[in-house]
Amino acid sequence: MDDIDYARYDRIRPIRWTGDTLELLDQRKLPFATEYLTCTTSDEVASAIHALAVRGAPAIGIAAAWGVVLAERAIDATDAIDAAAKLEPALQRLNAARPTAVNLAWALGRMRAALARAGHDWRDALEREAAAIDTEDLAANRRMGALGASLIEPGSGVLTHCNTGSLATAGFGTALGVIRAGVAQGRIDKVFAGETRPWLQGARLTVWELQQDGIDATLIADSAASHLMKGGKVQWVVVGADRICANGDTANKIGTYQLAIAARHHGVGFMVVAPSSTVDMATASGDLIEIEERDAAELHSVGGSRTVAEGIDAWNPVFDVTPHDLIDAIVTERGVIRRPDAASMRAAFGG
Amino acid sequence: MDDIDYARYDRIRPIRWTGDTLELLDQRKLPFATEYLTCTTSDEVASAIHALAVRGAPAIGIAAAWGVVLAERAIDATDAIDAAAKLEPALQRLNAARPTAVNLAWALGRMRAALARAGHDWRDALEREAAAIDTEDLAANRRMGALGASLIEPGSGVLTHCNTGSLATAGFGTALGVIRAGVAQGRIDKVFAGETRPWLQGARLTVWELQQDGIDATLIADSAASHLMKGGKVQWVVVGADRICANGDTANKIGTYQLAIAARHHGVGFMVVAPSSTVDMATASGDLIEIEERDAAELHSVGGSRTVAEGIDAWNPVFDVTPHDLIDAIVTERGVIRRPDAASMRAAFGG
Repeated sequence: MDDIDYARYDRIRPIRWTGDTLELLDQRKLPFATEYLTCTTSDEVASAIHALAVRGAPAIGIAAAWGVVLAERAIDATDAIDAAAKLEPALQRLNAARPTAVNLAWALGRMRAALARAGHDWRDALEREAAAIDTEDLAANRRMGALGASLIEPGSGVLTHCNTGSLATAGFGTALGVIRAGVAQGRIDKVFAGETRPWLQGARLTVWELQQDGIDATLIADSAASHLMKGGKVQWVVVGADRICANGDTANKIGTYQLAIAARHHGVGFMVVAPSSTVDMATASGDLIEIEERDAAELHSVGGSRTVAEGIDAWNPVFDVTPHDLIDAIVTERGVIRRPDAASMRAAFGG
Repeated sequence: MDDIDYARYDRIRPIRWTGDTLELLDQRKLPFATEYLTCTTSDEVASAIHALAVRGAPAIGIAAAWGVVLAERAIDATDAIDAAAKLEPALQRLNAARPTAVNLAWALGRMRAALARAGHDWRDALEREAAAIDTEDLAANRRMGALGASLIEPGSGVLTHCNTGSLATAGFGTALGVIRAGVAQGRIDKVFAGETRPWLQGARLTVWELQQDGIDATLIADSAASHLMKGGKVQWVVVGADRICANGDTANKIGTYQLAIAARHHGVGFMVVAPSSTVDMATASGDLIEIEERDAAELHSVGGSRTVAEGIDAWNPVFDVTPHDLIDAIVTERGVIRRPDAASMRAAFGG
């Protein structure tokens, strides 16, 4: 881990706490404008989360934690118990900003627990906990980066999907952290990123983010991935995860499953990178995950330009599930699980 | 074939010969405006081909043939030999309009041959030949439609890619002709179409075209195809072809190969539909096909809206090759080849 020059390979911070205000890099305007929203109240943070100015499960959790600190600055309270009661409405509003984001509830739970443990220094305790959530995420990403990169042979090409980078986390990223580490260590020669329809996170965010760190990445249409693999240009597909089940089945952005099938067909490695908070040992397998389907309108236009006739139906699942037998490695901050299954997952995460 | 109500299921004509002028449905404006360009000279036809107002290899060939008729109207000539000399400049300009379209040269070759065979009625001979190219294409498509549909079990769902419909042909379409026939015969319950990045032919053209015939089609992101198959929603993938090699390897729009891999993984059938003029027995296998790569700019924007930061590299192959062992059936107007290989292709097409 010490061989990576983080000052060079980890320049973007989507969330900046100034001591008084929270600055959020407005991801709706990327890659054309790099503007930070300044939030001075918890409700402004909730609005920014709701409006997708900040996105990515870890980043949302961190932003919400700092939102609680802003709420704390706005109240008078006699003690921690009084503060807990007075802060609860703000916590509820933050939690409601993105109801499906697991990390949001997890981060707010940590803030509530910190307050419950706190004595007379409850204001400091809340600020320390928010800072801990932030710095722990960055440290986990750097650890995963080193662990994942160690699996990649020097001279490799890699393909990633969606955005799993600094923009989605406290910094460095999950799958993109592995790619950063691999580039920094000279293991990765070539990075490819899929556009990631319909939201184009790969086109809008991932290649821009890597560009900021001086890492060349080549954009491809999602449907060109198999042709790329056939040409021997990539040795690993490296992706993030929204949920990892007890048997290793992994839910992630739509298109991930198709990449896993193609990778196996071509003998290309398939790596999932996510913090251990993504692991859900209470869900036995991917069959039990209900896949969110979003509005058809997301497929009717691109960047505000309508591309489809009126009255056309569209099917728009947001995620898909990659079965564990198509996954070569799951990387968390706790270590690497090769060829994951129920037994190896239980050994690593209990349950 | 007689059980299909073509008046209902084949309403679109991209190319209309009025007896004096050629009307071309301007595909650049679809699906938002249905406007025909009226061409009165062969140079106007060449411009329309060059500018992509008409697209699809068969459609380009047919338009060019009618362009030769317009050129014939504009010349005085003493006999067929004199006419051939005087028409040659117009033929050259038509041929140069899309240098890579095989059907364009093939159609112009037929027009030259018709003129060479003709006597004093050389003007009529040219018009008859253009009409023959047009009507033969439509007849071949209807024949392929019936042959391909017969492979599909009642109650099936199908997925297609790109646009292989009336818009790309004289009418009815190739892969989309099979889907039209299957719907008309009650074999197909559900049609899905991939967007087909980067040009979005599926989103802009295919679902619109089916809508004109009253066929409901559901648009999906290209990367959602495997998730769709996993859910058991499609039994066949039906696609066209740009070139079919002597061993059955097939070049088609980028993304086709990925669909073939996914189809095999899920036990879904994979059908290629194209006229026999697409078969190239002189090319032994797909490895020998050079894949055209187009400008990176096609991945930098959608519908005129830029989506990617400046300075980002992109890889934009136009086609990919699906190896014959992933193809369950090749359908031409001459018949069906199941599990194509070099032997079965040679038996069907000689060489």
